[in-house]
Amino acid sequence: MMSNKLTLGLLQLPVGRDVADNVRRALESITQLKADNPQLQLAILPESFNGPYSVEKFRRHAEPVPDGPTCQALSKLASKLGIYIIGGSIIERDDSNMLYNTCTIWAPNGQLIGRHRKLHLFNMNIEAEQLGGVQFDEGEALTAGNELTVVQIGAQKVGIGICHDKRFEELARLYRIMGCSMIVYPSAFCICQGPMHWELLQRARAMDNQLFVVTCAPARNNMSGYVAYGHSMIVDPWARVLREAGQGHELIVETIDFDTVVEVRRQIPIYKQRRTDIYEQARANI
Amino acid sequence: MMSNKLTLGLLQLPVGRDVADNVRRALESITQLKADNPQLQLAILPESFNGPYSVEKFRRHAEPVPDGPTCQALSKLASKLGIYIIGGSIIERDDSNMLYNTCTIWAPNGQLIGRHRKLHLFNMNIEAEQLGGVQFDEGEALTAGNELTVVQIGAQKVGIGICHDKRFEELARLYRIMGCSMIVYPSAFCICQGPMHWELLQRARAMDNQLFVVTCAPARNNMSGYVAYGHSMIVDPWARVLREAGQGHELIVETIDFDTVVEVRRQIPIYKQRRTDIYEQARANI
Repeated sequence: MMSNKLTLGLLQLPVGRDVADNVRRALESITQLKADNPQLQLAILPESFNGPYSVEKFRRHAEPVPDGPTCQALSKLASKLGIYIIGGSIIERDDSNMLYNTCTIWAPNGQLIGRHRKLHLFNMNIEAEQLGGVQFDEGEALTAGNELTVVQIGAQKVGIGICHDKRFEELARLYRIMGCSMIVYPSAFCICQGPMHWELLQRARAMDNQLFVVTCAPARNNMSGYVAYGHSMIVDPWARVLREAGQGHELIVETIDFDTVVEVRRQIPIYKQRRTDIYEQARANI
Repeated sequence: MMSNKLTLGLLQLPVGRDVADNVRRALESITQLKADNPQLQLAILPESFNGPYSVEKFRRHAEPVPDGPTCQALSKLASKLGIYIIGGSIIERDDSNMLYNTCTIWAPNGQLIGRHRKLHLFNMNIEAEQLGGVQFDEGEALTAGNELTVVQIGAQKVGIGICHDKRFEELARLYRIMGCSMIVYPSAFCICQGPMHWELLQRARAMDNQLFVVTCAPARNNMSGYVAYGHSMIVDPWARVLREAGQGHELIVETIDFDTVVEVRRQIPIYKQRRTDIYEQARANI
């Protein structure tokens, strides 16, 4: 694990109405993936992988973190298989009965090593007919998180964001400054935004911050109220798409080499070339 | 001019060794473009349009700003044609004999309304064989500027950057905060970086800041020491490539509609959704 390589698996799973079914499918799929790929070190699940992505339904399948059944199942599985799990997201209900869109991150010993509450709630109203529309406001049901989340996975620092978080390049920049070599965004982009900006967002964050960007989305299901775009993806620090899923149920396993991060940063030394003095002065003058 | 539309022309011109020839070609091309397109309101020239892009040769063709011959010619032309000119860049020599890579911006009355000295000097050492290499360090000859540049073009605020400046998303973000609806980057990307990142950079800046991004590059010349990539481009606030030149001598005229900026910002309200409180707190804790 102290090598500069990491073998990760993306689980682009279908998500149905039944939470127990969804969790069972996730556990079985990770178990099978590890059996088929003994070198697997990290499994990544989609946003809202255990229940429908719907403002009306969030409260019904919300759970405490980390004591709820979904978290406990992920913890046990991580420990049983001896792998890291980035648990996509679930709807978290806290002691005050507030709801969050929350990603939990589990170490190979089953310990919770990070909890990311979505910082930027999804709120959009795209009308343009030629693009198909989308109206959605997570804020009707959810509360936004207030903290960045960086976890240690083997030798690497990994920043966590959830779906809409990836639209905010200032967050990715902060993760770069904090020393991350990868950002993982469990996501569920809609089919409206997907063709426009899904790949572009990931390649942009990878290029500007010279790190790996990984997304994991649910499989497309045209029968659900919110139709996800799929296309789980691994982008390398040169901004090349290394792997990309289609729209359906699909598993991806890939070994990535963090020496690439070092190479890109040496050859295109933009991080050192930033004019932070000037940026700060400009900000102060606005 | 108070409409929300703007007709602009990109002059992707060849650049040879002779400064007088280069300037004459630029003046004649703009004059002809205006004759052919009476609606033209803004002409944009490439980076280093009046002389070779070469660290060894910069000093030979450096000029004072705004009293040098190239600037005076641009001023006269802007006034004669009654248009704005974003004068790509030239090598500026100041009173202390320092050199800068400088863009001058001229109003239809011939007045200088902006001077941008490249903020981020180009310094790169790409080795990867599969990408072709590039070694270049502007810092051997040039001094970096220390100021952002926003000019008023008709009803629009326009931010200015030069080539490598566009790699720095923090600069584009500041221009957005300062109210810009367009960023213009006179550029001369090399053929090594071009296929990797040229289009991606422009689409990323347009997407994140929801504004027009425009580049103007010299035509490709395989006989010059530094081979430019061409591909002058207009990207709209949805991050769609509206127009793109090839690699050769090419002129592009396009009318863009700034109502698009308003539309995108209304439908995808990410600017208001930024968690600046959290970003500042995180920055303070690093």
